[in-house]
Amino acid sequence: MSAEPTNDPRLTPLAASLPSTVPFVGPETAERKMGIPFKARLGANENVFGPSPNAVRAMRQAVKETWMYGDPESHDLRLALAAHHAVDPDEIVVGAGIDGLLDSLVRLTVTAGTNVVTSAGAYPTFNYHVTGYGGTIHTVNYTSDYEDPDHLIAKAREVGAVLIYIANPDNPMGTWHTAATIQRMIESVPDDCLLVLDEAYGELAPKGTMPALNTHDARVIRLRTFSKGYGMAGARVGYAMGHKSLISAFNRVRNHFGMSRISQAGALAALDDQAYLGDVCGKIEASRQRLYDVAAENGLKAIPSATNFVTIDCGKDGKFARKVLKGLVDLGVFVRMPMVSPQDRCVRISCGTPKDMALVAKVLPQALASARKV
Amino acid sequence: MSAEPTNDPRLTPLAASLPSTVPFVGPETAERKMGIPFKARLGANENVFGPSPNAVRAMRQAVKETWMYGDPESHDLRLALAAHHAVDPDEIVVGAGIDGLLDSLVRLTVTAGTNVVTSAGAYPTFNYHVTGYGGTIHTVNYTSDYEDPDHLIAKAREVGAVLIYIANPDNPMGTWHTAATIQRMIESVPDDCLLVLDEAYGELAPKGTMPALNTHDARVIRLRTFSKGYGMAGARVGYAMGHKSLISAFNRVRNHFGMSRISQAGALAALDDQAYLGDVCGKIEASRQRLYDVAAENGLKAIPSATNFVTIDCGKDGKFARKVLKGLVDLGVFVRMPMVSPQDRCVRISCGTPKDMALVAKVLPQALASARKV
Repeated sequence: MSAEPTNDPRLTPLAASLPSTVPFVGPETAERKMGIPFKARLGANENVFGPSPNAVRAMRQAVKETWMYGDPESHDLRLALAAHHAVDPDEIVVGAGIDGLLDSLVRLTVTAGTNVVTSAGAYPTFNYHVTGYGGTIHTVNYTSDYEDPDHLIAKAREVGAVLIYIANPDNPMGTWHTAATIQRMIESVPDDCLLVLDEAYGELAPKGTMPALNTHDARVIRLRTFSKGYGMAGARVGYAMGHKSLISAFNRVRNHFGMSRISQAGALAALDDQAYLGDVCGKIEASRQRLYDVAAENGLKAIPSATNFVTIDCGKDGKFARKVLKGLVDLGVFVRMPMVSPQDRCVRISCGTPKDMALVAKVLPQALASARKV
Repeated sequence: MSAEPTNDPRLTPLAASLPSTVPFVGPETAERKMGIPFKARLGANENVFGPSPNAVRAMRQAVKETWMYGDPESHDLRLALAAHHAVDPDEIVVGAGIDGLLDSLVRLTVTAGTNVVTSAGAYPTFNYHVTGYGGTIHTVNYTSDYEDPDHLIAKAREVGAVLIYIANPDNPMGTWHTAATIQRMIESVPDDCLLVLDEAYGELAPKGTMPALNTHDARVIRLRTFSKGYGMAGARVGYAMGHKSLISAFNRVRNHFGMSRISQAGALAALDDQAYLGDVCGKIEASRQRLYDVAAENGLKAIPSATNFVTIDCGKDGKFARKVLKGLVDLGVFVRMPMVSPQDRCVRISCGTPKDMALVAKVLPQALASARKV
């Protein structure tokens, strides 16, 4: 994009004050700059194994129905999700990915002067929305590469936060807390505060990571997606589960006719194929193991992950890790890295096909060597 | 949906104040209530002729890529649109339909106390967003079933409006102004006010309806969609064209990764097949003519339309038209009607296949007869 033009005089004061930075630059943007496509696309934690063949079939069939708007209530999908999770359909709202749901949620709860708490270096799109609605972000540091529930709760009490954001498992570190730890966190959420529990990678985590659902507990909202475990990032389907009172409020602000009809059909079929999801989890586990091994072969420490990516400690500082990242990108492997110190000593590599992993094994030593040389 | 629960205490005062009404109830919701599907779906101005076979093919092919996020810049689509319209790519923003773009636009320009102007009974989703961001809606009446540019401009001056909304061609009446009339309107937009020119039905209108594009003129933003002429309502692809300064501001608030990858691919292929669009325009014209004839056969006046729907004057008041509408719906034909008097003397029927039109010809006399009886 070109340089930012001057502000339009009709923007609200808030809109005029917003930075033009975007949460993430897409891989296509980098490819256009480089003039060649990446050989492996391992930077956005996309699921290279893709959706269930049943979902593929459902989406192909739905193409012929795309002259019709998608059901604005995502009724069939919500009913299937409700049955799957044993909650009430009115306790689920479907949206255009977790990003879209975060937009609506922040819009509902954050205005000028509202305080929110998150971890320094956690998911930037949450911050993008908070800033976008005029809220104030307070951060706590990671503790040993883990988001820190106690510190988050303490900070929320200190600043009178309305929202606390935590991802479990975490992105960008891949670390995770047990269900018991998160349940204790839920139970210590201050009055009139909401825990935003981002479980984008939940399906990929070991059993015992996600606390039992209790949609009667208004202290927490749970965010899930079809982008990661279900392999449908491009379809933009996420959902939130929580107390009926909060979930119903989404209907006051959301883009009712915003869901693609094809995506709704695909998500419904993907949800129905839990066996495929299980297979994919196995493939991701193997890829994760391969990334651990590649790290070890290069004398680096991989941080154990409950996600479809592995964050590798490059062993030095952020400056060094940025060189490693640049080396990987220059060698055709799209990866990203944590943005805040000391987590920025790492690079984050998504799980991939055996071919992708072989490429990583081949180019990581080269990237490290050139980073050490520069 | 069940009755509205009490307000969540964490909602902003604005969010807590918002009504739970939705702009439109979807046909699927009505079908679920009735327990049977509609025989003809002619209420949402969907394009029954569907997208170009090339777009269908592109979407089917893109299904296998849906593990990847869509390009957050919609780069290829924006470039193709820029070439098509002979504007700069930075003067175009792509979003999840005009509804999604209206959300971003209103968010950028409307806050508590902001005045906007529209016509009473015009597109309700615009009002939904204005209310949703705390703005104040001022309306002027239609003049002889036309949105009235002079009255809209005068009202905007009177209230110091930041936005003026007009659709050309208009929905729900189907009427349209010439490009010259709209160009005069653009030129009379007050300082620090923006004309929101919704051209959702623009491709279906006679030549000479849409004024020449001039993205250097910051007084107007033009909204277009792939939902109507291009037959892809379920894909959720719209775009806005305007001054670079305003268009770039969308990047501060939009859901960057919100566009379906399949939809982007479909829109790109649909745009490329202008011959197909021409064919569809012909089919829609034939269907429009058939609706005019059916109205005449029943002694009713059809309002001439530049869209893919025809609004038929039922000859009496809103109460009567609502009975006709109910009759049509009960006979399996999904239609809608204008919501505000005196336009609510009409029912609005979308263009359809010859089979759809035959069904309308069959059931309209029955609906009229039972409306006259009750």
